[in-house]
Amino acid sequence: MIYGHDPRTGETIGAAFPETDSAGVDSIVSAAAAAGTTWRATPAAERANALEAVADALAAHVDELWQLADQETALGEVRLRGEVARTAGQFRLFAQVLRDGGYVEAIIDHADPSLAPPRPDVRRMKRPLAGVVAVFAASNFPFAFSVAGGDTASALAAGCPVVVKAHPGHPGTSERVAKIVREALPSPDLLGLVQGMQAGADLVQHPGVVAAGFTGSVAGGKAIQRLIDEREVPIPFYGELGSVNPVVVLPSAPVKEVAAGFAGSLTLGVGQFCTNPGLMFVPEGDELRDAIVEAVEGTSGGPMLAERIRDGYLGGVERLGELRLLAEGKPGEGSWAVTPKVFTTDVSTFEEKLPRVAEECFGPASIVVTYRDVAELRSVLERLEGSLTATVHSTDPDEAGEVTEVLGRKAGRLIWNGWPTGVAVCWAMHHGGPWPSATTSYTSVGATAIDRWLAPTAYQDWPESLLPEELKDANPLSIPRRVDGRLQA
Amino acid sequence: MIYGHDPRTGETIGAAFPETDSAGVDSIVSAAAAAGTTWRATPAAERANALEAVADALAAHVDELWQLADQETALGEVRLRGEVARTAGQFRLFAQVLRDGGYVEAIIDHADPSLAPPRPDVRRMKRPLAGVVAVFAASNFPFAFSVAGGDTASALAAGCPVVVKAHPGHPGTSERVAKIVREALPSPDLLGLVQGMQAGADLVQHPGVVAAGFTGSVAGGKAIQRLIDEREVPIPFYGELGSVNPVVVLPSAPVKEVAAGFAGSLTLGVGQFCTNPGLMFVPEGDELRDAIVEAVEGTSGGPMLAERIRDGYLGGVERLGELRLLAEGKPGEGSWAVTPKVFTTDVSTFEEKLPRVAEECFGPASIVVTYRDVAELRSVLERLEGSLTATVHSTDPDEAGEVTEVLGRKAGRLIWNGWPTGVAVCWAMHHGGPWPSATTSYTSVGATAIDRWLAPTAYQDWPESLLPEELKDANPLSIPRRVDGRLQA
Repeated sequence: MIYGHDPRTGETIGAAFPETDSAGVDSIVSAAAAAGTTWRATPAAERANALEAVADALAAHVDELWQLADQETALGEVRLRGEVARTAGQFRLFAQVLRDGGYVEAIIDHADPSLAPPRPDVRRMKRPLAGVVAVFAASNFPFAFSVAGGDTASALAAGCPVVVKAHPGHPGTSERVAKIVREALPSPDLLGLVQGMQAGADLVQHPGVVAAGFTGSVAGGKAIQRLIDEREVPIPFYGELGSVNPVVVLPSAPVKEVAAGFAGSLTLGVGQFCTNPGLMFVPEGDELRDAIVEAVEGTSGGPMLAERIRDGYLGGVERLGELRLLAEGKPGEGSWAVTPKVFTTDVSTFEEKLPRVAEECFGPASIVVTYRDVAELRSVLERLEGSLTATVHSTDPDEAGEVTEVLGRKAGRLIWNGWPTGVAVCWAMHHGGPWPSATTSYTSVGATAIDRWLAPTAYQDWPESLLPEELKDANPLSIPRRVDGRLQA
Repeated sequence: MIYGHDPRTGETIGAAFPETDSAGVDSIVSAAAAAGTTWRATPAAERANALEAVADALAAHVDELWQLADQETALGEVRLRGEVARTAGQFRLFAQVLRDGGYVEAIIDHADPSLAPPRPDVRRMKRPLAGVVAVFAASNFPFAFSVAGGDTASALAAGCPVVVKAHPGHPGTSERVAKIVREALPSPDLLGLVQGMQAGADLVQHPGVVAAGFTGSVAGGKAIQRLIDEREVPIPFYGELGSVNPVVVLPSAPVKEVAAGFAGSLTLGVGQFCTNPGLMFVPEGDELRDAIVEAVEGTSGGPMLAERIRDGYLGGVERLGELRLLAEGKPGEGSWAVTPKVFTTDVSTFEEKLPRVAEECFGPASIVVTYRDVAELRSVLERLEGSLTATVHSTDPDEAGEVTEVLGRKAGRLIWNGWPTGVAVCWAMHHGGPWPSATTSYTSVGATAIDRWLAPTAYQDWPESLLPEELKDANPLSIPRRVDGRLQA
């Protein structure tokens, strides 16, 4: 049985949830697949309405949901209310994406008999993958990257039914959210929920599953990839894994703002973000270092989401103990509470200890690495693995050019004078990056996240009456299309 | 040493080419990577000019090239002249793609401080993968899917340097084409060539390689995937593997045209196409069957590309011998010549022998499966694996609806009253499909093939002077972009 736990006390709370056995996974996936045959044939505008119904239902239950999640995660009212709003907002964004229609990337090339060889009429659009999408929920976002998170919203938008493997950190919240979403959808079977580690393995190996989304650790992602590699028919695996999110402070950056911003971003949500700034490069010198010490000492820790995550953080901090401790915050309160810690070293010591020293330590810990000059900085940045984000602090773009060229090959999102925590849900967002921050070049946040669950089909000399609406000459849905080589918005 | 062979005589021809050893692969990849740093920073319009220079150079050498390739492949003047033209045309298409600029999928979301939380300015575009693309050349297209084929053209267009592993079926043609392309590019190192099986393994495991393209068999694709799985840093693998390309003849289809078209498509190029019609479903009855017999008996075989490919065909035909031989063409002439063969059976026998009977038999062999009614037809189509193409012959779209729904989940390209051989190189083409016809949902032919070598980057509050031209507010390159949610063509 799986129980929720209160991170403030370490005690079990709420009902016990049975682990889903293999027969259960099979029946849930089969029901989802059956519901999916209707869903994938449902016009995009109707799918958009359904997504908005889900958004409304989530928003309507915010009072209940934040309290339930707070018991299981200790993330607090403000954050959790905000996260429910964001989660509903993701469904609304994908409703817009569906109504816009550009996501199918419709292309029409009319026949051209004058060419040698003559060209037939060819039309292409992206359509939903024909099967069930498996989603592995994250620990650190009980709403936005969980049962009704971005993976689920984008897959439902694409036209795919979803079966989620709940995260054991918030089983009760997961069950409640699933019930709300299922009631709001045209068929409840479009969203299935399974509990337990073995159920996750059964899910990703089920022949009815055609793709999987995952947010979690590198080790977890590799384990799922191995399960997928055993399948007879391979499927795409969209994993968002570990990331240290380097921050580069250039000489012109304002000392106080950088120190305060760093301490805030590092300790937000007890540091439990994939985009937490785990590594910061600063120029040699006392002023910024002293400001960082002061800012970090003003922070407080708090209880982490799960005992296992707390233990992982303590292990990571122990590993970083081979560096010098620069500053720490006040200890947090509660059974699974931890203390923010910032370590420091210089570039050459840091490079000696690569790659181990630059592995993600999930939680409010970071390393401040002091550099002598831009040449040294460039050289160490070149050695970093991929991250979701890279941040530059500077008041002078001219001094940043060389550094940004390197960072542009190391991260999926580049941030200027800001902080990586907080991922805007919008059309242009990219939440992904080079390995090991992600398994593919796709994003898990923002409008283009829908692209993970689509595949193109080309229609050659296909009769008008059998063409999808998106590809009919009259463009009845008024969507953007590329016709005979020219994009028509 | 590697030698070319004349398929008409089985004898070695031309010079001997040494296999590239590990040090050689390393030095070629390193040189490509170094040339790539300039290439990826070269404006798209200049890359377009370079691609057109390559196209011109290939076209200028057509007289020499077709003769060289004909000695090594026996594919004949008409086909090979056409293939050089197509190969040059692929470079020209990607030059258009670069000038259009839509391929970067530029998206701009301006800051919105009125939102909670306030939204920063976020801009996203796709940029070239930062490293070398490995390309495994195909046997059956010495130009269009080889050294200067679609994988190479699209990767160079994207901004990536390329190292090709030559196919042993045409080593001399490969070396000559590489020399022509290298001379036409701004840096010869942008295209490297390696020879030999071990060189291919070294190539795909080289740390400087960031993606691989492959056209070949399922077994070959699986072998490369295993090599990639051993890498420390995984890379995307775009493989176009095996495909049986089912053709469905519905009752209304005209008998004579179908029989003649089938025989022609089956035996074109000695059946050596990924899109060869390896499986055809026809209604029970004598008339069409007799017409097929007559048409197939009017065809001739010919020498296959390589001894190993000939042996593979003979093995495949032996495997199909458990079905009834319906018709065969005239034997071809030459050492490695084979005879076109068509087998037949009914749906229930075919289903008993699945999946083995439906594996691709590369060459001019096919199975004609007779069905009783559309229900039986639908049910057997449902059991097929993925293919690059699926074709319907009918004069009545109304009778085809149910069948096309199934085929739409089984193939990447749907063809009406045509034949799958011949893949138009255009914006809308999709040459890919569900496993095992391809390893991903990307295409290897057509304008969108460039997408395989790109990954998105998001820029948050990034200074105008450091933004790529594609994302500057003034849109200096006049490319299509989505701005604040609206696509602007």
